[in-house]
Amino acid sequence: MNDLLFYLDIFGVIVFALSGALMAGRYQLDPFGVVVLASVTAVGGGTIRDVILQTPVFWVEKPYYLYVILMTAILTIVLIRQPKRIPKRFLLIADALGLALFAVLGTQKALYLGAPIPVAVVLGTITGIAGGMIRDVLCNVIPMILREEIYALAAMLGGSLFILLRGLNWSDTQAMTVSISAALTLRLAAIYWHVSLPAFHIVEKPKKEKDKSAKRK
Amino acid sequence: MNDLLFYLDIFGVIVFALSGALMAGRYQLDPFGVVVLASVTAVGGGTIRDVILQTPVFWVEKPYYLYVILMTAILTIVLIRQPKRIPKRFLLIADALGLALFAVLGTQKALYLGAPIPVAVVLGTITGIAGGMIRDVLCNVIPMILREEIYALAAMLGGSLFILLRGLNWSDTQAMTVSISAALTLRLAAIYWHVSLPAFHIVEKPKKEKDKSAKRK
Amino acid sequence: MNDLLFYLDIFGVIVFALSGALMAGRYQLDPFGVVVLASVTAVGGGTIRDVILQTPVFWVEKPYYLYVILMTAILTIVLIRQPKRIPKRFLLIADALGLALFAVLGTQKALYLGAPIPVAVVLGTITGIAGGMIRDVLCNVIPMILREEIYALAAMLGGSLFILLRGLNWSDTQAMTVSISAALTLRLAAIYWHVSLPAFHIVEKPKKEKDKSAKRK
Repeated sequence: MNDLLFYLDIFGVIVFALSGALMAGRYQLDPFGVVVLASVTAVGGGTIRDVILQTPVFWVEKPYYLYVILMTAILTIVLIRQPKRIPKRFLLIADALGLALFAVLGTQKALYLGAPIPVAVVLGTITGIAGGMIRDVLCNVIPMILREEIYALAAMLGGSLFILLRGLNWSDTQAMTVSISAALTLRLAAIYWHVSLPAFHIVEKPKKEKDKSAKRK
Repeated sequence: MNDLLFYLDIFGVIVFALSGALMAGRYQLDPFGVVVLASVTAVGGGTIRDVILQTPVFWVEKPYYLYVILMTAILTIVLIRQPKRIPKRFLLIADALGLALFAVLGTQKALYLGAPIPVAVVLGTITGIAGGMIRDVLCNVIPMILREEIYALAAMLGGSLFILLRGLNWSDTQAMTVSISAALTLRLAAIYWHVSLPAFHIVEKPKKEKDKSAKRK
Repeated sequence: MNDLLFYLDIFGVIVFALSGALMAGRYQLDPFGVVVLASVTAVGGGTIRDVILQTPVFWVEKPYYLYVILMTAILTIVLIRQPKRIPKRFLLIADALGLALFAVLGTQKALYLGAPIPVAVVLGTITGIAGGMIRDVLCNVIPMILREEIYALAAMLGGSLFILLRGLNWSDTQAMTVSISAALTLRLAAIYWHVSLPAFHIVEKPKKEKDKSAKRK
């Protein structure tokens, strides 16, 4: 079991670092900027989770995560060379994998450290979405959670399903496999078919009042 | 007293969650995105305060805050239906209420945990403004603190006045009522009459140097 | 030695506060907004470092940092008056000084608290770049790390060189002086000659797929 956890966690770090490095490539960052953006994306969510839980931050305790990120960033730079063209979908798929993995792994860690169920789901969601959010905010791209396709739901579903299955006495391994698969499937399907939930849409009154600079151009 | 603190705190969470949900409605998020944005806005400031004070984060200890946010988000979605038009001012008023409440409550909590006076004022200001800042940054809206109307002053005034009145031996309840009212009045007046303090304005030299990409378009 | 550390630290806080106040001046913030932006820039990186290390946050323990920031913000407002024109380069130089100082001081503090070497370099880099990143994100300016000139490299170089020189049994003072100077020289040279490392650039495939709202306009 611990082995599975370990490999899934490393895999999550790799795919999020990859998504950060790919985003950096779109913005023509230099190699050190690529490493920074890959790192922020890969460890952002888990760092916030650990800080909120007030447990030692995972990559401070286990610095090999940093080497994994460094190698992922370097490999991305070396292997994906201009002018080979990369479809944007690669970034979306790497992000979806990271989202599903970290949402469930984050929930599991929070539960394991004694967090109540709703707190564990929230911390799992944070683990899954925060790294990508920071990546997008830094790059001035609208965070994926603000776009139409199912995103927050996939993260919450992963964590909630994991807790439900554990409550039904499934083993950690089984519950994790099923819940990660469910979250990933949901998110990938949403990307592929552009599925989105009905939006909550507020139409504003036509503005007569002075309202300069309320939105960025 | 503890009752008053409790109700004010819950009320602050509700109004900030409302402001996040209203903002989400302007961006046509799906219901789960609404919940995420409402949560970030409602707990962002207090979470940063607790993490900096290295005291257990309030919503990890008391998960009922999460239910309050969830219910606020759902009610906002259900009650405020398209095509009913919502004036932007609702969001501003909810934000002003949250700002005044959290600035004073944050200062009180920091003082109670032994922070020195200037630290308590700063942590109160953080509690009041950080949630709304994160909401605005995620939504690519210029944070309210960067607009002209009195904003940071209202938060600092609330916390400072609370400390002053406590120093004059007023009771917590009295000091809190007066300082929250003062901060709220100041902020609402600024919104209503578009009052702003004289700005600190740097005029840049006309650029001859190469200066590409310094600002986003 | 402790004296040197102390003065360098205060100097770093001053220059970052100055860079935040100058940025605030470009956005015509009111005086309280200036103080907030100066504070966030000056203490942002160190706060994240201390929170991740789970050591008491430096300005909570030593509130005089807050007075230093307050005075820097006030002096900036008073001394730099409109319509005197400020070249944008002032902001860049203040930022470069803060970057070099905090990258090395952050690495030193992390090492001193027992962090492994790669963690110390990462925490030094965070200390150097995070405050300016938050400043830029709040102001909707592209973070300097995303522009072309050498930025992340300067921070990483400072911290790594410090660790290397300490490993060669240089004194803290000597190692710090040399590594701060090296990072600062590199960054200033990059600003002056617009030097940048070869960028990692991904060319995207022409999009046929529906891809609305992927980037902000």
